[in-house]
Amino acid sequence: MDDDDLRRGKPSCHKEFDEATALLVGDALQSLAFAVLTAPGLHSNPHQQLQMTHLLAQASGSRGMAGGQAIDLDSVGLALTQEQLEFMHLRKTGALIRAAVLLGAWCSAKHTHADADNSALFSTPAFSALDHYAKHIGLAFQVIDDILDSEADTATLGKTSGKDKETNKPTYVTILGVTRARKLAAELHANAIKPLAGLDNAGLNNSTRLIQIADYIMQRAY
Amino acid sequence: MDDDDLRRGKPSCHKEFDEATALLVGDALQSLAFAVLTAPGLHSNPHQQLQMTHLLAQASGSRGMAGGQAIDLDSVGLALTQEQLEFMHLRKTGALIRAAVLLGAWCSAKHTHADADNSALFSTPAFSALDHYAKHIGLAFQVIDDILDSEADTATLGKTSGKDKETNKPTYVTILGVTRARKLAAELHANAIKPLAGLDNAGLNNSTRLIQIADYIMQRAY
Repeated sequence: MDDDDLRRGKPSCHKEFDEATALLVGDALQSLAFAVLTAPGLHSNPHQQLQMTHLLAQASGSRGMAGGQAIDLDSVGLALTQEQLEFMHLRKTGALIRAAVLLGAWCSAKHTHADADNSALFSTPAFSALDHYAKHIGLAFQVIDDILDSEADTATLGKTSGKDKETNKPTYVTILGVTRARKLAAELHANAIKPLAGLDNAGLNNSTRLIQIADYIMQRAY
Repeated sequence: MDDDDLRRGKPSCHKEFDEATALLVGDALQSLAFAVLTAPGLHSNPHQQLQMTHLLAQASGSRGMAGGQAIDLDSVGLALTQEQLEFMHLRKTGALIRAAVLLGAWCSAKHTHADADNSALFSTPAFSALDHYAKHIGLAFQVIDDILDSEADTATLGKTSGKDKETNKPTYVTILGVTRARKLAAELHANAIKPLAGLDNAGLNNSTRLIQIADYIMQRAY
């Protein structure tokens, strides 16, 4: 399995089966996510259930994951700036990480609106803090991923290393070098967890778990 | 553009751009459909809006389009029975045609339920008639498509003809021959529009349009 793609030490779906099958499984699982989120009676407030589904749809689409992936494809061989790389990753991987955090928050938040307007909920300090957290751990995850790709050997990483360099893709390591990329990851981690202290006061008292997730992202690297 | 795929006389997306771009556009458009359907305030009844989104999600997934496409991929070179071919097409193209018809019906139907239960709506004679119509025009569309592929030249068809035979895919023509396939399409058409007469009594008085669509599907062939 020398040149094959690995994920967590196992062959990726498109290697174990084939590319067409992997693409179809992705399509089917995405549809399943929307089917689960819209299941009748899943949530006592159908407005809130609609808004959660809407959030996931936006995070997956042209202004989220699919758009970020398109930018990624167009960036092969280009010398991106750090800002351009960040713009891409906030969409390609960041949008779904953000959706995961906010959907979790939304499940536990007490929704007091009986109508379709969700702007009040989104502008609460708790949601702002979680959004800030999600954005920054998403970027930290990507920086660490780039460092791992450049340094780790295949056995440790669980996926084929050096692939980014092979395909001539811009990464945080190609732009900043390993040392500055490590520093950036640490800054993003610190920045991510900074506003979480305020969450306990807002009734969302599981910031310990969120900090553990942020720590785990960093520890993958060393 | 000899060997390239054509759609309505123009190059398909994956030929005009490339396969990765076409796949991403598909992902983005599917997400957009879910975003549109879950837009806050789109429908006065959020339960109904959720159920419509749920229907689309199921029609797109493993028991709908994605599953049908997977069966299609697995069927290359196999001698399918007519029943197996129908099973595949009811999912691959039929599920979304059915969803299009039922979602339209749902928009215009008076929804009297304030809760998450939609079983009563689905079992009305009007919905049964529309479901029957959608299933049969979906199959008729596919039979006609197979006939067109086997007979029409590329200029008339607007897409590359003879492709099914080249790729050794089972079709209604390879199973039945052209004459019996034509007869089947006519039967499916007649069967599709048969229960529409009852719709006017149910307050859904646009069966004329539905019949025109069924007629159009048939006229593509000749």
